[in-house]
Amino acid sequence: MSEQITDIAAYMQEVGRAARQASRALASASTGAKNAALNAIAEQLDNSRPALQEANQKDMEAGAAKGLDAALLDRLELTPARIDSMIEGLRQITALPDPIGEIFDMNYRPTGIQVGRMRVPLGVVGIIYESRPNVTADAAALCLKSGNATVLRGGSEAFHSNQAIAQCIQQGLEQAELPATAVQVVATTDREAVGTMITMPDYIDVIIPRGGKGLIERISNNARVPVIKHLDGICHVYIDDQADEQKAFDIALNAKTQRYGTCNTLETLLVAENIAASMLPKLAAAYTEKGVELRGCKRTCAIIDNCVTATDEDWDTEYLAPILSVKVVAGLDEAIDHINTHSSQHTESIVSENVTRARRFLTEVDSSSVMVNASTRFADGFEYGLGAEIGISTPA
Amino acid sequence: MSEQITDIAAYMQEVGRAARQASRALASASTGAKNAALNAIAEQLDNSRPALQEANQKDMEAGAAKGLDAALLDRLELTPARIDSMIEGLRQITALPDPIGEIFDMNYRPTGIQVGRMRVPLGVVGIIYESRPNVTADAAALCLKSGNATVLRGGSEAFHSNQAIAQCIQQGLEQAELPATAVQVVATTDREAVGTMITMPDYIDVIIPRGGKGLIERISNNARVPVIKHLDGICHVYIDDQADEQKAFDIALNAKTQRYGTCNTLETLLVAENIAASMLPKLAAAYTEKGVELRGCKRTCAIIDNCVTATDEDWDTEYLAPILSVKVVAGLDEAIDHINTHSSQHTESIVSENVTRARRFLTEVDSSSVMVNASTRFADGFEYGLGAEIGISTPA
Repeated sequence: MSEQITDIAAYMQEVGRAARQASRALASASTGAKNAALNAIAEQLDNSRPALQEANQKDMEAGAAKGLDAALLDRLELTPARIDSMIEGLRQITALPDPIGEIFDMNYRPTGIQVGRMRVPLGVVGIIYESRPNVTADAAALCLKSGNATVLRGGSEAFHSNQAIAQCIQQGLEQAELPATAVQVVATTDREAVGTMITMPDYIDVIIPRGGKGLIERISNNARVPVIKHLDGICHVYIDDQADEQKAFDIALNAKTQRYGTCNTLETLLVAENIAASMLPKLAAAYTEKGVELRGCKRTCAIIDNCVTATDEDWDTEYLAPILSVKVVAGLDEAIDHINTHSSQHTESIVSENVTRARRFLTEVDSSSVMVNASTRFADGFEYGLGAEIGISTPA
Repeated sequence: MSEQITDIAAYMQEVGRAARQASRALASASTGAKNAALNAIAEQLDNSRPALQEANQKDMEAGAAKGLDAALLDRLELTPARIDSMIEGLRQITALPDPIGEIFDMNYRPTGIQVGRMRVPLGVVGIIYESRPNVTADAAALCLKSGNATVLRGGSEAFHSNQAIAQCIQQGLEQAELPATAVQVVATTDREAVGTMITMPDYIDVIIPRGGKGLIERISNNARVPVIKHLDGICHVYIDDQADEQKAFDIALNAKTQRYGTCNTLETLLVAENIAASMLPKLAAAYTEKGVELRGCKRTCAIIDNCVTATDEDWDTEYLAPILSVKVVAGLDEAIDHINTHSSQHTESIVSENVTRARRFLTEVDSSSVMVNASTRFADGFEYGLGAEIGISTPA
């Protein structure tokens, strides 16, 4: 398929034009029609298992021939269980409330006019992602539910799998009498397609890159369309000297060790000096038992043995591995200052029983998720009851 | 002052760094402290009238020497009445509710965690604007109230006026014990300052250009920081064949003729064919009496006499002048299609007594303000009860 497209820029313009056109139909589509399409797509996927696996087989063979490593090949594979979970994802999104059309804040003004706000779609969302083919279905479904047309550009390794999924999506859309062009999967692996896609503000309203840091930086640097992104997750837990020690122990341990490779994993632990001598030895023992390497400030290393001295770089590093940097701080002020200087504004948590300090932490820490007495691992769309999420950037 | 800065990029980096630092203090400043600062700034302006007018006099003389036309010189002038209204603007913003810190949607999740959302500032807002010096006070006050630090870059013609206003702002901030660097007015007229300002994502979170189309396009094309903009206002009124004719007449006349140079002024009138013969002659007479030139489609020109034939270009033109394009359409579908193709997504209005058509118009027209039985001239922050606004792009 890729080979047939010679003028990539013209092809992408055509994709964009069709998406813009489809976005109008989608913006005013009823909840019923959108849910019918989601159900039809789920059914198409269910009925197309042999075709999906055949297409995936082509990608797997090409990947193996290209020498992709085992981890990448694993992410690429569409097993029956992964097809199940793709279908289950569609059913879950179908069950979510429709965010579009809600009218709120309706008030009369002194002039007699009545003024309110209405929740509307963005228009056309462009999503650029790496090799997991299940993202194709997830992303299409989320955009469809929220009344947006989508242009999807998956990784070249998953080209055949993505095209097979795209076919199911388009058949589902047609069955529900919505335009098939409401979801388009770019039918070329040529890199120029991405370059064109991120520079067509007339046709694409927002770009969401989903992949590694390199991909996201490349796109942010060159896009002429707004980009919704987050780059990394350097998450902090601050143990205040008015913390409940058991809570502090459980939270600090869970936040680091429940999973190492996720963006909401703890990377730097801050401990108030008045509680450090009491907390650090038992925490260090627990971390060491789990195989976590500790890199501490001087004061930390003076309290615990199994600890190497942290360098300046450590405070700015997302390890995504069983490594933790630990710093003793004077108290809340130093903790907040350290966080606002070194965090990636993803997720930070304070452990404290003092309500005034908790409120200050919530107000003064400038991160997407700010928590009191909770593990950073709770930072997740489903855990928050906000529905499915898209756009995480670290391999998880 | 401008002459003393030799390394513009380094100077702007320093401004950015200071703004980022100040933004932290501002984000957690209490409503009381922010209001105290706004009041102190208002007082400083009131007490500095001679200094303000002296500085403005320098700009006026330089402007006259440079050959600025009368309209530009008029916009540049800081009359006693304009200083009054700047002060009044500050008082109004002081009286607005504090948008920051509101916590909402607090719910318990099945895991036992309690999750909510908190309204927080953006951080550092960069505003680039043209010659009206009163924007300096307006923009600073809006950002201050909403907990944001600001970097302001005014037009070079208003340099001395802006610096004098900046001094009042900084004295007011210091009086309220907030960092003076919370509002910084760039102290050079060198264009390189803008180039640096729009490419420092580490220090500036969002750029708002306020000025003509040329300025806004230049900034959008080169910015590495998100830009909040709107370019033009090609606003439409659609008179449906189920309209109340008196309402339609009043709205169409008000929307075009109340003021010609504003972004929410009507530029293209769409009339359903079944009501065109009845509506157009009386509207044409009223427009002609006001001196409005009419440019119609063929069917319009067949109904009314004083009408020139519109070209394709007319449907995409924001006249900002006593000129109106008029098109007869088959009905709602064609009206919506025309609007979604030609409008600048600013403000569109339907005049109809039919509730189903009104609802379709609200759902299917993709513009910032979509109205039923109201003049487009109502599109305004204060009229909507949303408070002061910033970022309009057309001279008004």
